[in-house]
Amino acid sequence: MSLLVIGSVAFDDIETPFGHAEKIVGGAGTYIAWSASYFTKGIRMVSIVGEDFPLSELEALQKRGVDTSGIKIVEGGKSFFWAGRYYNNLNSRDTLVTDLNVLADFDPVLPPHFRDSEYVMLGNLTPAIQLSVIKQMAHRPKVIALDTMNYWMDSAMDELLEVLSQIDLLIINDEEARQLSGEYSLLKASEIIREIGPKYLVIKKGEHGALLFGEGRVFYSPALLLSEVRDPTGAGDTFAGGLMGYLAGQKNLDFEVLKQAITCGSAMASFCVEKFGTEALRHISQEELSERVERFAHMVQFQVPGW
Amino acid sequence: MSLLVIGSVAFDDIETPFGHAEKIVGGAGTYIAWSASYFTKGIRMVSIVGEDFPLSELEALQKRGVDTSGIKIVEGGKSFFWAGRYYNNLNSRDTLVTDLNVLADFDPVLPPHFRDSEYVMLGNLTPAIQLSVIKQMAHRPKVIALDTMNYWMDSAMDELLEVLSQIDLLIINDEEARQLSGEYSLLKASEIIREIGPKYLVIKKGEHGALLFGEGRVFYSPALLLSEVRDPTGAGDTFAGGLMGYLAGQKNLDFEVLKQAITCGSAMASFCVEKFGTEALRHISQEELSERVERFAHMVQFQVPGW
Repeated sequence: MSLLVIGSVAFDDIETPFGHAEKIVGGAGTYIAWSASYFTKGIRMVSIVGEDFPLSELEALQKRGVDTSGIKIVEGGKSFFWAGRYYNNLNSRDTLVTDLNVLADFDPVLPPHFRDSEYVMLGNLTPAIQLSVIKQMAHRPKVIALDTMNYWMDSAMDELLEVLSQIDLLIINDEEARQLSGEYSLLKASEIIREIGPKYLVIKKGEHGALLFGEGRVFYSPALLLSEVRDPTGAGDTFAGGLMGYLAGQKNLDFEVLKQAITCGSAMASFCVEKFGTEALRHISQEELSERVERFAHMVQFQVPGW
Repeated sequence: MSLLVIGSVAFDDIETPFGHAEKIVGGAGTYIAWSASYFTKGIRMVSIVGEDFPLSELEALQKRGVDTSGIKIVEGGKSFFWAGRYYNNLNSRDTLVTDLNVLADFDPVLPPHFRDSEYVMLGNLTPAIQLSVIKQMAHRPKVIALDTMNYWMDSAMDELLEVLSQIDLLIINDEEARQLSGEYSLLKASEIIREIGPKYLVIKKGEHGALLFGEGRVFYSPALLLSEVRDPTGAGDTFAGGLMGYLAGQKNLDFEVLKQAITCGSAMASFCVEKFGTEALRHISQEELSERVERFAHMVQFQVPGW
């Protein structure tokens, strides 16, 4: 199957209580693609970088089977740059720098051979860009998933609602779900959001796991307990990448398959946070991955008491 | 089996965004006993109230099979009174009044027929009182469980450590586990706390569920998603009561049984928060209870992908 990934490719400066990484490769698209590459081939990436971006990074993705021909390299341009500092056991962070650079003028044009992709993951970008990608598809993809953030709810709500009406799966965090719906109860929030369009909704709760809503059902996937969490940057995108990568390798989209996909996403996110940036996503064996996914099953299984 | 419950029996004033309840019956002991009564007979309660406490409330407990002969009624005394106000979608609260009244001089003397109890639930009280109860037991109970709070970690750490060294199961929330261990990672915190004494540790995470640690394993029980949460008062005690009530009805204490017990506690807590005070705990049918417990299993079950 083919998975189209749209998202930023960037440089990050990351400071956590556990260290400081300067100008490492990040961006939503990067995390999504690396994570998805463990589950499916045929990943196609659309993004924009400056001339300063190392080609070796694109080659590393190509070696994972990612078609990077949709990543535009702007001559003389500078790549998107973000710097952040984490505090308080990684629960809060300050953004120190956001230099959009070439991302400011990102107007993606899909290479013709990308337009028949069956799965589409729209990383967090302006809703206008997300809409433009959907319009360029040759026919309706099997699954369109989308990530967004509070900022677009404040600044581009109309366009956000329009794109939400065209997707199958929305992946946001609990705070965003509450803002989007105006409801504190995540159960009520899920009903309101699903009426806007997406048949399925995934609500990420960070260290508390993730919830899946759809088909009148709820699924809860915990987060694994880790001894060391060094850098949460990209965990949400890694989760989405694992989830969509897994889906793209399946025949159908239904609640049962989504449950597995979420568990794969959670497993990938658990690797991600153990090291800085995308480092932990570069070499994961099938054995390590299977072991983590199985841990989720063991962590929640119990025998219902027979009264 | 016999379950000894020690905890406050009190009057509460509770204000939430959903209403205001004045001078309703509360207290850790009350919630624990009501909740446990759905799982076991032979509950024995030790507490203290003033002359102002309605006998009808004790009779209601007796009708649930609770032996209230260990509840001392102080002539001319006033019952413990607590008033609190909840804010921000019930995530934070202010204590407006704490009148210890008769609880200030609580020095429990166990009725002789209570001293052979096989299961003991020590509700949140001074560690000195909790120690005194253990000392009065005729022989080592099968299971001693304990709840405590930050306040005792600040003011009576030595006695708290002493009582912790004598129990089997500690039930605290995530904030308390972090303070007690000095570790933010709950996995690391669990190791440190279990070295102090308790073989098993349950960490409550409110709307995010609960974790069980022991035998080198971890179990995660989510909280049910509810449309309406009206009053979180007593949810933690209700959880502990359901957990210990279930345990007291079982032959052995092991990880598998504890997993079921935690799910029963979570189910009871989910009823508790839907109404004010203990109201929701007064009439729960076996059918309603079974249905809730099964919902936990459905909420987390998935088929591990077969790679």
